[in-house]
Parts: sequence; structure tokens; C-alpha cells
Amino acid sequence: MKEKVRVALCQLEVVDDKAANLERARRAVVEAARRGAELVVLPEMFNCPYAHRYFRPYAEPYPELPGEGAVLGEDAPAGEGTVSDGGAMPAENGEPTGGSAGPTWETVSGAARETGVHLVAGTVPELDDQGRVYNTALFVGPDGRLLAKHRKVHLFDVDIPGGITFRESDTLSAGDAVTVVKTPLGVVGLAVCYDLRFPELARAMVDRGAEILVYPAAFNTTTGPMHWHLLLRARAVDYQVFVLGVSPARHRESPYQAYGHSLAVDPWGRIAVEAGTGEELLIVELEREGLVGARRQIPVLRQRRPDVYG
Amino acid sequence: MKEKVRVALCQLEVVDDKAANLERARRAVVEAARRGAELVVLPEMFNCPYAHRYFRPYAEPYPELPGEGAVLGEDAPAGEGTVSDGGAMPAENGEPTGGSAGPTWETVSGAARETGVHLVAGTVPELDDQGRVYNTALFVGPDGRLLAKHRKVHLFDVDIPGGITFRESDTLSAGDAVTVVKTPLGVVGLAVCYDLRFPELARAMVDRGAEILVYPAAFNTTTGPMHWHLLLRARAVDYQVFVLGVSPARHRESPYQAYGHSLAVDPWGRIAVEAGTGEELLIVELEREGLVGARRQIPVLRQRRPDVYG
Repeated sequence: MKEKVRVALCQLEVVDDKAANLERARRAVVEAARRGAELVVLPEMFNCPYAHRYFRPYAEPYPELPGEGAVLGEDAPAGEGTVSDGGAMPAENGEPTGGSAGPTWETVSGAARETGVHLVAGTVPELDDQGRVYNTALFVGPDGRLLAKHRKVHLFDVDIPGGITFRESDTLSAGDAVTVVKTPLGVVGLAVCYDLRFPELARAMVDRGAEILVYPAAFNTTTGPMHWHLLLRARAVDYQVFVLGVSPARHRESPYQAYGHSLAVDPWGRIAVEAGTGEELLIVELEREGLVGARRQIPVLRQRRPDVYG
Repeated sequence: MKEKVRVALCQLEVVDDKAANLERARRAVVEAARRGAELVVLPEMFNCPYAHRYFRPYAEPYPELPGEGAVLGEDAPAGEGTVSDGGAMPAENGEPTGGSAGPTWETVSGAARETGVHLVAGTVPELDDQGRVYNTALFVGPDGRLLAKHRKVHLFDVDIPGGITFRESDTLSAGDAVTVVKTPLGVVGLAVCYDLRFPELARAMVDRGAEILVYPAAFNTTTGPMHWHLLLRARAVDYQVFVLGVSPARHRESPYQAYGHSLAVDPWGRIAVEAGTGEELLIVELEREGLVGARRQIPVLRQRRPDVYG
């Protein structure tokens, strides 16, 4: 990765008005860029209230990638067949590669191009040509082209009596790929919210060279206080990477109470920056030495014993 | 596992006097049993100061197990060839199965038999018949027989300038097995200190049915404050098991400043009990419903996607 990468975590409110959500996101990207951010991250479902009844109505088609998230860049670091290299994407001039695309794509592609940032456009409900809806993270390059898409692999199906009950699988389909993208800023792994509970997915991203794991996520007021900091910090320490978790802001009228507390963790597990529960734009600098130093001083990634546990 | 399992975590001082360490351990087991403990855990290197110059002089031979930690019980839950069933061990009447054994084995075997507890006799430096020394956790049954041994798989080789530099591999040899034991209390997985940094080993134990992970461990005053609570809690939440971490007490004259803070974590990641830095005997009850409830309400163990990440 670059010596220093300036990152913006945009903890945004989401309301039942797509155009308003898109305008809020666009402004956040512009403000983040003005403050020097090179990598900007929006929350999970930043254009759509988090509730079953909204996912399909808010869903749009998005540009396709060859192989859908399983593209090998020519100089990909890990050679596992799932590292995409932003520079090798075929789309030109910010135009979608294939299929149609709607107002959300126009907004995020335009905002990235206009500002020149790398933009993890949180997640959105994505409609595919079979009529399925996914919870999809978009990664847009500084030229407005799609670098990668990560369709949430693990759907949020939990049942905590007195806490939270939700079954994403009632309305959403699951992705089936590990998503890692080589960029000039560093190698970025993308996953979404509940994916965070699965250490093997983080491991798979790191095995493919990821240095920064980005999780747009909407934990809630039950699971957030229990596990949000713990899981983000654990992934950072176990795999010695930077980890970014970006949540929607909480607000009372929402059908789903997001936890907030967007944060960035360094490879030592230290929280570098953390939001409260309201709208906030956090800027943080990730220093490559934090990653290199951790891996040199506590070399767990080299000390693993696959001969013992496969 | 049993509905409720009463556990003792014995955070003991360790001094340069083996007989004194053994007497202290024996008394702790007796006291733990008096307070109703069924499973008693001693710290890493409970009979030997944690420093290179002591490991070999303090090392003793210990009873052998058929296959050394890779024994399949007849009704083992996972069938991976590495779950041992205490009831199937060949040794009788607390006598070692083979080879000689020294005063430490006599003490811990006697203490378990005398009190009827299951005893994780922390770790000890173990001398094998090739002259190698291991950092070995002993698991002794209530009849004084050896149920299992776990030789630390990942040796503690780190170099944190201004913090801690240590190379266990200068004097110790590494084990090469996953250690899981089926007992009437529950299925117990054993690992040692630095092994805690490797989530794959915890995963391998849980895949073999482990419900309680036991880590005798001596984190230090650099790595302890950074990572001790985090790693124990992360293993508990990711794999929805009880996790016990038992440290030596800290004391000023020691060549190695142990972190202390022995603790028990439930499958929700809640710290059920935690020591300070001095000598302490903690009692805690593990309730099976904590494990069953976590696995039912957030069913991550069933929701994994090995099709995606192997």
C-alpha cells in the first residue's frame, strides 16, 4: 500500500427518499475529497432504508464486471484467481460495461470521477437480470469506472428474542465470491456487515493480498454494543490489516435502528477514529508502517501451521 | 456439555523452586474442589519460571498417550481422528502409560485423583525421549489418569522493540496436533498461549466438537493490554464456545512479567469473571444454555460458506 492513505468514513442518515439519499452521499464525497480523502466509504444501504419492503423497490441494475468479482489482474499479488486490478477493467469513460444502470450508479460514478477519489459506495440493493436482489458493495475508481462489486455472501438471518429478528434471505440473494481489488492506494478487500462474523472470509481476502478490509455495515442496537468493536478489532489483529467499518447514522424514525459507531482500526487493533451515532464524516490516515511493523514484530501470518489444521 | 459446569481458574505465582510451585498448585486444586469446581485450570508454566534458562532444567518426562494427542474416542463427535475420549485411555489407576514420570506428574495426577476434578495442569516443560523440550498442557482425569497432552503448536517468537522480544524456538520444540477431549463435563479443546493468536486452531478444535476452549497462557505487560481480552473474546464469539484463559500471577522478581487477568468468556463474548494481576482463585459456572442459545440465535456455525472460501 501507499505510505499514507487518507480515508473518509461517511456515517450518513438514510431516509425513504432515494434522491435525497443520493444527494447526501454526493455531498459527502465532495466534502471528503475537499478534506483530502483518497478513499471514501459510504454505509451499508446508503440509498435505501434497511427494511424488506424497500429493498426491491429501491433496487437498480449496475454495470457488470467480467466474471462478476472474480477477475484476475495481470500483476495480482496472490494469484488465487479472485484479485481484480482496477486498471484492467474494460469499461471506459465511466460508462457501464453492459446492461443499464440507474440514478444511483450515475451519482456514485459521477461523484468519484468529479473528485478523483476511490469510492466504496457502501452498499445498495442491486437487481440482476434474473430479477434477484443483492446487498451489493460497489467500488468505483477515480475515473468513475466500476472496479469491483461485492454481493454480501452471508445474509443476515438471526433471531435474538427481545433483541433483533431479521431474515435477509426472505428478500435478498447471496453473493458467492471473495472480492479483493488492487489499487494504487493499496489492496482493498470488500465485504458487507454480517460477512464480518465470518473470519474465514477475512482470511480469504488477506490470503489474496488485502491490506485494507472495508465493511459497509449496519449493525443494530442489540448486536452493535455486543460485538461491533470486537469483531472489527479481531479481524485487524488476527490478519494484521486495516479494517474500516462504516454504518448509517441512527435516527428515530428509521424502521431499523443502526448502531452507528463507524470506525477505523489499525493492524494492532487500535481504534484510530470512531463516530458517535449521528451523522458524521471522519477522516483518518492509514500509515503503511502500521501494517508492516505489526507483521514484522508479531509475525503470525508467517507462523501459521496449516500442516496441523489444514 | 453438562447443564452447568463449575470451573476454577487458578492464577498462581510461579517461583524458582519447583517443589514450592507444585505445593502451591496442589493446594489450589484442593481449594478449588472444596469450592465445588469440577474443572480446574492452572496457568502456563505453573511449575517453572518463564525463561529459557529454566525450561530444560525444570523439564520432566510425562506419560505417553497412544498416538500422542491424536486419539479417536469410540463415540467422538466429529470423527476427524483427533478427538480423544477420556474413558478410552489405556492407563489404569493413575499410573503412567509408559516411560517414567517425575514429581510434577505425581503431584497433578495425585491432586486430580484425590479431589475427583478434571484438571488442566496448565503447562509444564516436557522432556521427550529424544531430548526435546515442549511447552505442554496436561489434562488429567478425576481418576488421576492422563486424558490428553497438548504440546504448544505455535512457539512464541516475537520482537516488539521497547516491548517484548522472545524466541521460544531457541529452546523449545513445537507440537503438531489439534487437541480435543470428550469428557462428561463437555468437549474440551486445549491450546497454549500464543496458539490463541491463530484462529484456525480454534476453528479446528470447534470443528472437532469443542465446547470449552482452555488456554493456559502467559501474555506479558506489552501484549496483554493490547490483545488478551480481545483475542479470548473473539474466539468465543466467532466460534460460539466458552473460552478460559489462565495466566500466572505477576510478581516483581520474575524474569518475565506475566499479564495476569485470567478470565472466562461466554459464547456471547461476555467476560464472566476476571482476575487482577496477583494470586487469585476464580470460580465460575458455565451454563450450557449460553452456548446453545448463541448458536441458535446467531447461527454463524451453520451459515458458513466454505463453497466461497474453502
